[in-house]
Amino acid sequence: MDIDVVTNVLKLNDEIAALNRADLNKAGVRCLDIIGSPGAGKTLLLEKTLQALQGEMRIGVLTGDLATTRDAERLADHCEKVTQINTGKGCHLDANQVRQGLSNFNLEDLDLLIIENVGNLICPVGFDLGQDAKVGLFSVSEGDDKPIKHPYIVMEASVLILNKMDLLPYVPFDMKVFDSDLLGLRSDVPVLKLSAATGENINEWLDWVRAFVNTKSPAAVLQ
Amino acid sequence: MDIDVVTNVLKLNDEIAALNRADLNKAGVRCLDIIGSPGAGKTLLLEKTLQALQGEMRIGVLTGDLATTRDAERLADHCEKVTQINTGKGCHLDANQVRQGLSNFNLEDLDLLIIENVGNLICPVGFDLGQDAKVGLFSVSEGDDKPIKHPYIVMEASVLILNKMDLLPYVPFDMKVFDSDLLGLRSDVPVLKLSAATGENINEWLDWVRAFVNTKSPAAVLQ
Repeated sequence: MDIDVVTNVLKLNDEIAALNRADLNKAGVRCLDIIGSPGAGKTLLLEKTLQALQGEMRIGVLTGDLATTRDAERLADHCEKVTQINTGKGCHLDANQVRQGLSNFNLEDLDLLIIENVGNLICPVGFDLGQDAKVGLFSVSEGDDKPIKHPYIVMEASVLILNKMDLLPYVPFDMKVFDSDLLGLRSDVPVLKLSAATGENINEWLDWVRAFVNTKSPAAVLQ
Repeated sequence: MDIDVVTNVLKLNDEIAALNRADLNKAGVRCLDIIGSPGAGKTLLLEKTLQALQGEMRIGVLTGDLATTRDAERLADHCEKVTQINTGKGCHLDANQVRQGLSNFNLEDLDLLIIENVGNLICPVGFDLGQDAKVGLFSVSEGDDKPIKHPYIVMEASVLILNKMDLLPYVPFDMKVFDSDLLGLRSDVPVLKLSAATGENINEWLDWVRAFVNTKSPAAVLQ
């Protein structure tokens, strides 16, 4: 019976995610869901991304956290609009929370919506929010074993980022282990190694975002 | 109805946790549950702890991960016995998994059981496993805002650790923000700032563990 309830909860989530996806597609908004551990650098990467792409495209941000509005405050100056969702003890964003968040935006005014999920490498992976692509974010200071220990985000992501490359000289991290573990799981996903703090290789990520926004989603093409 | 199921799941978990606690108390084993983000340094801290306390006390380890036995392999040389629990897509250890893990140990042969929870700063906090105390582990490279964003582990922990102090010169981290946020949440919990990698201040943690093991649990005193 517990399993039935979980299945029903996920089914309901998927139905609401489909509504989100339809609304976003109809308005021509592309949507990313960024997933990573607490402190992997999601917000700093977003800050740098918004600064770099300001004027070039219109970006809205939905950011999730258990508590505080600190991320939203950091991001507010750099984008069209940012909405914070506090989940309390909730470990992930769900499609209904995103649906409520979407009602704060005028989607016609956006090219890209970036969802910064709650800091958690596990639970957010299983919840469709209506995004077009998931971004999996690791960081050097978390260690080289994160892909093999967290295979589900690796399998689901459309792009993987290894952030905090500037810390490589100061931490135990074997890039061969990281690379070969990843390759054992998947060989068809781009892996961008960069530092949001120093800006190293961040252009690779910005180019990925540009290409992503310029690609119409398959669902939108069918409309 | 969903809420009833969640309540029942947690109630069942609590009942099994109480059985675990009773078995541990009866055998005179003290039990810690270490909770922290992926890559916060749980396993390295454990390695250093086991190396330092080997011969002084008998320690068993239960370690949780979605996938792989890498942590268990790292720890196996340094303690009486280590058992790995793979949770698959499960984001935390629950009392029943710990109960099954306990059956691998001869509890009479242990003074201390350390549970290394799944790398996740959120979900493990809500699940009683039968431990005597929870250890909340943050790391410098995660940023100074983690206590205020993750208040539940702060409220539940018997001791908090700020690991990776050796990285302080290389990352943006305002210790005043970290300290004052923590103080705003709780003033009655010890906060140990150390580096498992360099050994800086690790003696404070070892002394905390020694005092913890030498204190009989309140439940055991009542028996």
